[in-house]
Amino acid sequence: MASIPSTTQVGTHVILEDGVVLGERVTIGHNTTILKGTYIGDDVTIGHNCVLGIKPGGNQRMRNTASQADPLIIQAGTTIGHLASIYAGTRIGKNGFIGDHASIRENVLIDDTSVIGRAAIIELNTSIGKACTIQTQAYITGDTTLENNVFIGPDVSMANDKYMGTEPSTLTGPYIKTGAKVGHNASLLPNITIGSSSIVGAGSVVTKDVADAVTVAGVPAKQLKTP
Amino acid sequence: MASIPSTTQVGTHVILEDGVVLGERVTIGHNTTILKGTYIGDDVTIGHNCVLGIKPGGNQRMRNTASQADPLIIQAGTTIGHLASIYAGTRIGKNGFIGDHASIRENVLIDDTSVIGRAAIIELNTSIGKACTIQTQAYITGDTTLENNVFIGPDVSMANDKYMGTEPSTLTGPYIKTGAKVGHNASLLPNITIGSSSIVGAGSVVTKDVADAVTVAGVPAKQLKTP
Amino acid sequence: MASIPSTTQVGTHVILEDGVVLGERVTIGHNTTILKGTYIGDDVTIGHNCVLGIKPGGNQRMRNTASQADPLIIQAGTTIGHLASIYAGTRIGKNGFIGDHASIRENVLIDDTSVIGRAAIIELNTSIGKACTIQTQAYITGDTTLENNVFIGPDVSMANDKYMGTEPSTLTGPYIKTGAKVGHNASLLPNITIGSSSIVGAGSVVTKDVADAVTVAGVPAKQLKTP
Repeated sequence: MASIPSTTQVGTHVILEDGVVLGERVTIGHNTTILKGTYIGDDVTIGHNCVLGIKPGGNQRMRNTASQADPLIIQAGTTIGHLASIYAGTRIGKNGFIGDHASIRENVLIDDTSVIGRAAIIELNTSIGKACTIQTQAYITGDTTLENNVFIGPDVSMANDKYMGTEPSTLTGPYIKTGAKVGHNASLLPNITIGSSSIVGAGSVVTKDVADAVTVAGVPAKQLKTP
Repeated sequence: MASIPSTTQVGTHVILEDGVVLGERVTIGHNTTILKGTYIGDDVTIGHNCVLGIKPGGNQRMRNTASQADPLIIQAGTTIGHLASIYAGTRIGKNGFIGDHASIRENVLIDDTSVIGRAAIIELNTSIGKACTIQTQAYITGDTTLENNVFIGPDVSMANDKYMGTEPSTLTGPYIKTGAKVGHNASLLPNITIGSSSIVGAGSVVTKDVADAVTVAGVPAKQLKTP
Repeated sequence: MASIPSTTQVGTHVILEDGVVLGERVTIGHNTTILKGTYIGDDVTIGHNCVLGIKPGGNQRMRNTASQADPLIIQAGTTIGHLASIYAGTRIGKNGFIGDHASIRENVLIDDTSVIGRAAIIELNTSIGKACTIQTQAYITGDTTLENNVFIGPDVSMANDKYMGTEPSTLTGPYIKTGAKVGHNASLLPNITIGSSSIVGAGSVVTKDVADAVTVAGVPAKQLKTP
């Protein structure tokens, strides 16, 4: 059983497994499950019906990441919404926000003050910088990097497998540089770079690298103007 | 503790916070949490593992809507699915349907008999008329208006922030008039109007206003025929 | 009350309704609800906060499928993630994987070893063959057929109603043949066929049938090369 500081506000039917570490003034909603070894910092608020600290799994047709034994770490001042799921081996920075129904896989790093929208999904081995905004239902594929101050609109989609499972390949998601903005429901192909401060129009399909400080749009996306 | 009428069917591990008001013949599924002050009308059915009546929150980089103190009101005859989340300050009309995994924010008005599909998301300050159909995984952004009998296909996406967070701006979502139909996975830009009885083709990107009774399609969407 | 074999690992606050049948060595996570008559095979693992065996419902503006009385059947060796919902009248084959937050409706057949991604949604009356991969947030509409070894990328969208609810019509989703691959965020219109081993590019809108062994891309999708 976890040790619970006297400053904790714990809801009804909460499950705290062995080795969970809670900071001061943590709030945990009803029906939430926090699994073995999860570390929750000071002043973290967790909503109702969440599942935190999930060990990776799969079937024989999926990547085996079960060796990831690091805990989930949620740093001070972050808020987690309701009905969210977050895996072990991931670190969420200070004063962040994770929306309701969001899902975050293992080996993800999310730096301070970033916002992950409701029902957004962050796949494994992905790094998200400071002060990023990932909006509702956006899909950040595995093996992806977002630098700081990146804006990802609602329903943006990405892929990391050029061959769609046909052959063994190195999986690489997009690399999105500081201050870039991706409009809602745009699609980014594997292994492309979006340049610093560039803008991708809503509904675009980005098939190749985008330079710094330009705007692209369309299917396939083309540059609208030079800096 | 809430007062529970004798005609209520309550599942196991249900949490009813103070001041919840239940009408007659309400059904509440297992593991569901209904938060302070929520009003549930007669003959409402609520599924399992739902969270209803959530108070708005956020972090310092998000809009502060925490002053919204009105309760969640779910009117008579409406059905709520499983694993859904609905915020305080919202009113859902009579004989409606809210699908599993759906999420509805604060200050939303949904009129009678409208259907919100599974995993659809309705953001804050949005108004949805009577007999609308919002299909699966559709995203209705904040500050949006749908009149009556509007059809929104699966995975439709919208935005309300022309500048993607760059500068302070008035947030305005689309305005969709009576009887309009938006095909699946279409993208609607901020502040556009879709005319009455008009049709938007699947996968289109709508960048400017659409007149009444026309059909548009493509990226960007163009008018296919006049009425 | 269900009969629970001694080899079962059951979490805290689990609800097993009457007539649930559990095979040997089943694992059930915390806060999960398994409804009346559900059949769980040997060596099945079920995550936390799931709802399994849901009876179909709706309101007066939706298709009535409430006569479906068959149980949910999950066959041996399959893993179900967390916060997932699966309906009665559906059969999931052996050694499959259903991701977190996924939702599967009634009358769905999923054959052995297929993977349904996190937050993917499978609508009613749909058939999915062996060794298929349905990736994250993909939407498989109702009345759809996928043969074996089909790959559906993240955020793929489909529709089965040509008239978007305007008139009574036969609902028919896409028919996707063996080995076809559909790129992420593509949109497939109702009643089209995707040929065997064909490839649909990311973000495409497929408006008509695609032959075997070809690649199509764009809005609307056009053939890029002949075999």
